Amino acid sequence: MTAPTLDLSMDPARLTASLCDIESVSGNEAALADAIEAALRPASHLTVERDGDAVFARTTMGRSERVVVAGHIDTVPVADNLPCRLEGGRLFGCGTTDMKSGVAVALRLAATIAEPVRDVTWVFYDCEEVEAARNGLGRVARNHPDWLAADFAVLMEPTNATVEGGCQGSLLAHVTVRGHRAHSARSWHGTNAIHAAGAILDRLRAYQAAEVEVDGLTYREGLNAVRISGGVAGNVIPDECTVSVNYRFAPNKSEAEAHDVVRAVFDGFEVSLADSSPGAMPGLSHPAAAAFVAAIGKEPLPKFGWTDVARFSALGVPAVNYGPGDPNVAHTREEYADVALIVECEERMRAWLTG
Amino acid sequence: MTAPTLDLSMDPARLTASLCDIESVSGNEAALADAIEAALRPASHLTVERDGDAVFARTTMGRSERVVVAGHIDTVPVADNLPCRLEGGRLFGCGTTDMKSGVAVALRLAATIAEPVRDVTWVFYDCEEVEAARNGLGRVARNHPDWLAADFAVLMEPTNATVEGGCQGSLLAHVTVRGHRAHSARSWHGTNAIHAAGAILDRLRAYQAAEVEVDGLTYREGLNAVRISGGVAGNVIPDECTVSVNYRFAPNKSEAEAHDVVRAVFDGFEVSLADSSPGAMPGLSHPAAAAFVAAIGKEPLPKFGWTDVARFSALGVPAVNYGPGDPNVAHTREEYADVALIVECEERMRAWLTG
Repeated sequence: MTAPTLDLSMDPARLTASLCDIESVSGNEAALADAIEAALRPASHLTVERDGDAVFARTTMGRSERVVVAGHIDTVPVADNLPCRLEGGRLFGCGTTDMKSGVAVALRLAATIAEPVRDVTWVFYDCEEVEAARNGLGRVARNHPDWLAADFAVLMEPTNATVEGGCQGSLLAHVTVRGHRAHSARSWHGTNAIHAAGAILDRLRAYQAAEVEVDGLTYREGLNAVRISGGVAGNVIPDECTVSVNYRFAPNKSEAEAHDVVRAVFDGFEVSLADSSPGAMPGLSHPAAAAFVAAIGKEPLPKFGWTDVARFSALGVPAVNYGPGDPNVAHTREEYADVALIVECEERMRAWLTG
Repeated sequence: MTAPTLDLSMDPARLTASLCDIESVSGNEAALADAIEAALRPASHLTVERDGDAVFARTTMGRSERVVVAGHIDTVPVADNLPCRLEGGRLFGCGTTDMKSGVAVALRLAATIAEPVRDVTWVFYDCEEVEAARNGLGRVARNHPDWLAADFAVLMEPTNATVEGGCQGSLLAHVTVRGHRAHSARSWHGTNAIHAAGAILDRLRAYQAAEVEVDGLTYREGLNAVRISGGVAGNVIPDECTVSVNYRFAPNKSEAEAHDVVRAVFDGFEVSLADSSPGAMPGLSHPAAAAFVAAIGKEPLPKFGWTDVARFSALGVPAVNYGPGDPNVAHTREEYADVALIVECEERMRAWLTG
């Protein structure tokens, strides 16, 4: 079997289709990473490095500013939606929007801009769609933190070609109420934990989510039950009920502050923290970010979903989300990318990097 | 291997221990049924029949009244609590209370009362502790309904040697509320079904269980959540939440009436009936029942838990629960029967059948 090859001179929509048709569900990115590495190696203006299935390529012009442009090359599992098909100006298929259209734009820019006005580190990484411990960007940050050093980063996640600043943090906690088992034929001998969990749902129903302004962007928080479970058997009064809640918090709150909010809301209940991820400040006041926003030429928006911009933020690198995909169709069977936005995205970024 | 044998001249506590030490977890009653059949066959005053692992023995004195005395011979799984041990007047072990102490009393009475004042059908049956479809009494009712014909029945389930009349019915229903999925980072695009289920729990918390007097006994009803489930993933607003509720209803309500009660409580929600079992009227006003209550000499109580008396009730035979075991320790590792109550139970029933 011959390794698949990529032709970076194709138009960005056709290149997107080529990238999608090399299946790369998380954990299975080797063929695509090989193809990307092979396509970039010939460019004499790039220094190419590899860590697992992450490919790094950088210019070394000695510019006063260095920016990272990053995209993940893995996708969620294919849902009978490959190979890609073009229809009505939209390219349909697994990975089109999330985020191989962004990767296509980055690859074309990497190959064709030999002398950018800012030095660029192009990053193509693996395992973004799975648990955080496997994330390729996180692995590189541990193995080679210097590879990610920059003044500013653009993560090409789907944003409908609008700059989305920072990202909200996310916290998952389990709120438990306990009762006392009894045979349900003599329920008055027990204390029903599911009934008692009504008070947890009362708190959630009464909770007013905050809207928080950070760097001129308004982040809309949310506190939601995402799972509930309780019950022993059809004839037993249940002695335990747990509601798992997800708190999405504005990036000016720390994880500890977010945890305090959740504990306060459920004061009197047993609350255990299951997981949390910090948000990322939009950092739009940074000059490099401001220049990027100006080049894109649209009003920036807040990013609500958590993305890997938070990893850059944790490394002290201001970062924004910007990509041609549509986040609303990501992970769906009907996933598609709008060809016009792919083209627009490449144009605007080319303008930014060529000044 | 020799088949185990039973000596029905033993005192009833020792006989209980012998019965328990022949393990007979539901589905595995053959050895015990064989031993019971072998022990009863020699009694010339009894006609013995067998259906699967159910053993029937009847007197045919031509009395004006026929009563059934029934007990199941299976147990829940053994929990490291065999062989039996006697300690402080209590016989500990799997099956002691539920209900081999009752079976021991019935076997001794069957063997030793050759000329009862009422004709008796002694019933020892299998698979009471498992799903209704396997129940040995139900099977006999289908195969040989005439074997169960009687004016009155005593089921020797554990009641602490007090007559417990009839039994409550039981109904299981699923109450579901639906919402609309969304990414939890943009929760305002969805409708949280778990939050909405708070209204189901509100109804349960507000519900006042009825106390219903039937034939002079006060049945205490109950409506309880026994299971709750909802949730898709930690980052998804859930679109469905189901609360399973168990309604225990007084025996003067039909299953259809009980279903109406549940539908009315959850008016406006999607309610689906999962399972129901009718109650059994106490029937204490029936002369045969009144004579039994008089012979036992204690104030009868209502039975809250569902028992096979409902099967007799469905066949038009008034039935009560009466046995030496303690229902509160049934199915526990610490299961025991009080020797004094086993002796008392045998005495009172002997008086009833010989008086």
